[in-house]
Amino acid sequence: MIVLVLNCGSSSVKFQLFDMATEAALLRGAVEKIGEATSLLVCEGEGKGINKQVSAANHSEAFNHMRGLLADLPQPQAVGHRVVFGGEIQENAVFATPEIESLIESYSALAPLHNPPNLAGIRAARQFYPSVPHVAAFDTSYHQTMPPRSYLYAIPYDFYEKYRIRRYGFHGISHNYVAERAARLLAIHPKDFTGITAHLGNGCSLTAIQRGQAIDTTMGMTPLEGVMMGTRSGDIDAAIIFHLMDRLGISAAEVQRILQKESGVKGVSGLSNDLREIEAAAADGHERARLTLEMYAYRVRKYIGAYLAVLANPQALIFMGGVGERGTAMRERILSGLSHVGIRFDAGRNRQATPPESEITTPDSPIRAFVIATNEELMIARETQRLAAPQA
Amino acid sequence: MIVLVLNCGSSSVKFQLFDMATEAALLRGAVEKIGEATSLLVCEGEGKGINKQVSAANHSEAFNHMRGLLADLPQPQAVGHRVVFGGEIQENAVFATPEIESLIESYSALAPLHNPPNLAGIRAARQFYPSVPHVAAFDTSYHQTMPPRSYLYAIPYDFYEKYRIRRYGFHGISHNYVAERAARLLAIHPKDFTGITAHLGNGCSLTAIQRGQAIDTTMGMTPLEGVMMGTRSGDIDAAIIFHLMDRLGISAAEVQRILQKESGVKGVSGLSNDLREIEAAAADGHERARLTLEMYAYRVRKYIGAYLAVLANPQALIFMGGVGERGTAMRERILSGLSHVGIRFDAGRNRQATPPESEITTPDSPIRAFVIATNEELMIARETQRLAAPQA
Repeated sequence: MIVLVLNCGSSSVKFQLFDMATEAALLRGAVEKIGEATSLLVCEGEGKGINKQVSAANHSEAFNHMRGLLADLPQPQAVGHRVVFGGEIQENAVFATPEIESLIESYSALAPLHNPPNLAGIRAARQFYPSVPHVAAFDTSYHQTMPPRSYLYAIPYDFYEKYRIRRYGFHGISHNYVAERAARLLAIHPKDFTGITAHLGNGCSLTAIQRGQAIDTTMGMTPLEGVMMGTRSGDIDAAIIFHLMDRLGISAAEVQRILQKESGVKGVSGLSNDLREIEAAAADGHERARLTLEMYAYRVRKYIGAYLAVLANPQALIFMGGVGERGTAMRERILSGLSHVGIRFDAGRNRQATPPESEITTPDSPIRAFVIATNEELMIARETQRLAAPQA
Repeated sequence: MIVLVLNCGSSSVKFQLFDMATEAALLRGAVEKIGEATSLLVCEGEGKGINKQVSAANHSEAFNHMRGLLADLPQPQAVGHRVVFGGEIQENAVFATPEIESLIESYSALAPLHNPPNLAGIRAARQFYPSVPHVAAFDTSYHQTMPPRSYLYAIPYDFYEKYRIRRYGFHGISHNYVAERAARLLAIHPKDFTGITAHLGNGCSLTAIQRGQAIDTTMGMTPLEGVMMGTRSGDIDAAIIFHLMDRLGISAAEVQRILQKESGVKGVSGLSNDLREIEAAAADGHERARLTLEMYAYRVRKYIGAYLAVLANPQALIFMGGVGERGTAMRERILSGLSHVGIRFDAGRNRQATPPESEITTPDSPIRAFVIATNEELMIARETQRLAAPQA
């Protein structure tokens, strides 16, 4: 089956075409800066290395560029759409029926930055591919197995009952993908996998998985909670918000913008949200860059400990995402000196870790740690095929 | 030396008189509901069991009642005052000089509920005991050994430099006291103690201590952060605040009131902030009471794991405070099934734990757990004597 996977943001469309017989990506690309004066079309695969300026006022015009590139390739038999927020929808993927579109729309209040463009993408794509099934895959669904003790906040219970204020978690497609890969590396069934998956990119989250089911995750009702990220603060004392508003006269909207866009690695370092730049600056003796790296590692390490304490018989810890897969020094900072909780880090193996999969603990480590290249698009393609393929 | 320890809140004065030769409390009592139509004087010790209605419009009138009770006892040679917020003052206790009073006053912006009555208490007490030294002991100072990776939030670094927004931590006097007791139980010097202290009362905090120095604590810039408490939410996704304000039209002040006064055990259970009532309701089959207990234990357990991961060679875990000392079932919920991180809980020992000190892990547990009755007043008295006693 040929599956097209789409990830539509407010100003970008990312696309990837899979031949599911081999799970090979025939083509991957993106239209970026949609709605700006000049947009950008980038693409790789099948001799189509492209990086050029185009005009794309909206998602439909972006799709036109994409369809041009796909013209002489096998045509998609199904389209899988990434949708960030699926509320309490438990299925990893569902057909994008009118009912599901309404649900995605109704969740826009809880995911105002993501769900509206995700939905616009589904609707525009349906115009281009009207005769194939469209499937929505959610970043939240994988976490729907969390028990109430994990997903509820310690606030009045009414807020959950009336307004569905709870922990949802994100990056679920990525956590799901690497948990399945990890099970294969451990030669066990995915339903028997118990461990921790750490997606460390510009956004970061860790998930605790007990016998194949997510039981906790660091991102919360929104992606603001949890570990320190590129520009997001992660966990803070909520009272700081009131203090900034009351004492410093900063508006709620401005506080929110600061916590989302000016905090994390960028805010502490004062340099950049990109950990590679921070590593370079720290190597040059930049004190706040060094502090930023230390804080980042420390906060991940605390969640690893927290999740080890709530898992029964944890087997493995997985790193993925840009920092997780390529941040050799950061992985060492995070995992050094954890033997007493069962993780025996192997610095040599870590330095030699290569994609797509490497082990970075010693052979006798009670809990094994791996680096696994995540592949959210392939996971969406698999879910799309699972739903859309004609039953044999 | 005879030391009077005072803890002045906005509507109460708690007092305790110590003979430091034996560290015995000669008398302990309180004036409560100060400023209300009728106030309450309660007292125990030296044949003075008292519980009666009195008139006390302000702290001075409350002190008059207290002085009446103390009249025929040895007179205080020094007065120790509990002060909640000492900012970045590193000494556990200091003489309450005019400079220190100014500092306490200047910190009122960061501790508006506590520092003003603490300071009013110092000033009123000086009128009553003008010729003895007055000492201020801070709930924050013990945590001042935290490194920047722990005390900084991942927000713009400016906010720390300009406004001193950082983690301060609280309950430091209690954490300090039990850490010293724990060192004695382990037959080591307090400077060699590495472990976790968990103060679980109506307010709750855990502290990670490395070789006698606090390196992290769960309460933050304010006592709102951390584990779930009687009425405080502890950790939440900060974005929930914006959501409540924007989408539900709740004012910032009301959100803050809800998170401080209507959340935690009270908010989730819908019953009470008192865990004893929640335990009873859960035993009667009340579903949300059961959920409340599960959440409470789960959140403490996560921090125990987090702190084990950041400590090198942790030796012990201590429970103190009302729930920590008397919540037998809660301790079992928190510690069961932690063998894989080094804590081998002993349910039998836990059930038989009696004050002031009991061990609740098995003899072969790599990390030992204890219940230790905290005594913040005695700790303040010791610090007061240390400063105020004439040097030999």
